Amino acid sequence: MSDTLKRLAERIETRKPANGGDPATSYVARLFAKGDDAILKKIGEEATETVMAAKDARVDGDTSKVLYECADLWFHSMIMLAQFGLTPQDVLAELARREGISGIEEKAARKDMLRDADEGKSTF
Amino acid sequence: MSDTLKRLAERIETRKPANGGDPATSYVARLFAKGDDAILKKIGEEATETVMAAKDARVDGDTSKVLYECADLWFHSMIMLAQFGLTPQDVLAELARREGISGIEEKAARKDMLRDADEGKSTF
Amino acid sequence: MSDTLKRLAERIETRKPANGGDPATSYVARLFAKGDDAILKKIGEEATETVMAAKDARVDGDTSKVLYECADLWFHSMIMLAQFGLTPQDVLAELARREGISGIEEKAARKDMLRDADEGKSTF
Amino acid sequence: MSDTLKRLAERIETRKPANGGDPATSYVARLFAKGDDAILKKIGEEATETVMAAKDARVDGDTSKVLYECADLWFHSMIMLAQFGLTPQDVLAELARREGISGIEEKAARKDMLRDADEGKSTF
Repeated sequence: MSDTLKRLAERIETRKPANGGDPATSYVARLFAKGDDAILKKIGEEATETVMAAKDARVDGDTSKVLYECADLWFHSMIMLAQFGLTPQDVLAELARREGISGIEEKAARKDMLRDADEGKSTF
Repeated sequence: MSDTLKRLAERIETRKPANGGDPATSYVARLFAKGDDAILKKIGEEATETVMAAKDARVDGDTSKVLYECADLWFHSMIMLAQFGLTPQDVLAELARREGISGIEEKAARKDMLRDADEGKSTF
Repeated sequence: MSDTLKRLAERIETRKPANGGDPATSYVARLFAKGDDAILKKIGEEATETVMAAKDARVDGDTSKVLYECADLWFHSMIMLAQFGLTPQDVLAELARREGISGIEEKAARKDMLRDADEGKSTF
Repeated sequence: MSDTLKRLAERIETRKPANGGDPATSYVARLFAKGDDAILKKIGEEATETVMAAKDARVDGDTSKVLYECADLWFHSMIMLAQFGLTPQDVLAELARREGISGIEEKAARKDMLRDADEGKSTF
């Protein structure tokens, strides 16, 4: 399982037009062919679908759609990363970096509890 | 690096109120304390910020903000997964499952090229 | 111009299946036939497209796409309102109500400037 | 009621820093002072909140939150329009224009029913 993201990223890479990806047979190649806005539009769409699936799950108790939509969201995030020359490994490295500094962050958090949690400090 | 997601998920888990997470000192505990809507709102926000960062990157050539915002999006996705009893491993398993079936999917793709790529088939 | 929203809302109403709207010939009837999630998904999509158009406008100076996407967003908002038995007049009444109370709100604002502007007080 | 949008737009205009809007006392002035991204982020947020409110309304039957969130979405849309030198009147004119051409559009719709409704034709 640990290599799933890496393997998926490599496969996504092969779908770029420059690498021989064929829009006629591949959904990912089709997105690359359409370009930035088509890919970014999917980020917004999949985020909305994830939110809707989560609201449904709270009503019917079935979380499988949340999982499915979150997979969609991450999958399209990976296409976007590839489009901008980035990899999921870069994202994991950024997340690991934050984990390392979060002890410091938490001390800071005590000081500024008046600040809305919403301001984008996405650490622990 | 391969265990980053697993380790982060475990750490997020410790921030749940039921596991002793303290809203006074932890941003993640604060989100859990606020509940579903606060977490889901962040999914929408981070998706929007990712899209804006990507638009900026195409202008100024600096992709670091795309990386940062994508990390935010994944981080809050993991909080949502935890909120619904799911893990990033579940997401990776779902992505790996799709990878396995995508050969079949691609044959299907040839048949229905008239269908908009938008219909949610998020496989290769 | 003042009656545009009212007239559009009436026309949207005629596209409901119960009012004879035909999914075969009308885009709006098609959305009503698909139901809540299809309509709500469009809200997320059009919001994302509006954001992208605005980012583009700041680069190329052409605001016509912002206008176009905002019209799309409001149009689909009106379909959603209709789906939930609401009208744009209701929205305008709510906005007018807030305008009336915003003098009070502004006094309050002085007190809580430490609170993030993000908390959903959408008055003046 | 017909002039609500116009009056609101005029009032929003007075909140621009260049027109004397004071971030210390006005939420709208604060958004203008923060600039494009802060305003666009609100579009994404309010869209997400509208979607969540609609999902809730289907469960609990209370549509007042849908109305409230849609008012928020339109209100922040108007701030964005002002930020880009546009007005709600422009949006209404665009919507009226589409209404006028939608007879033609509907004939076209019969031809391309295979095309996904999703492709951005937001007319009747």
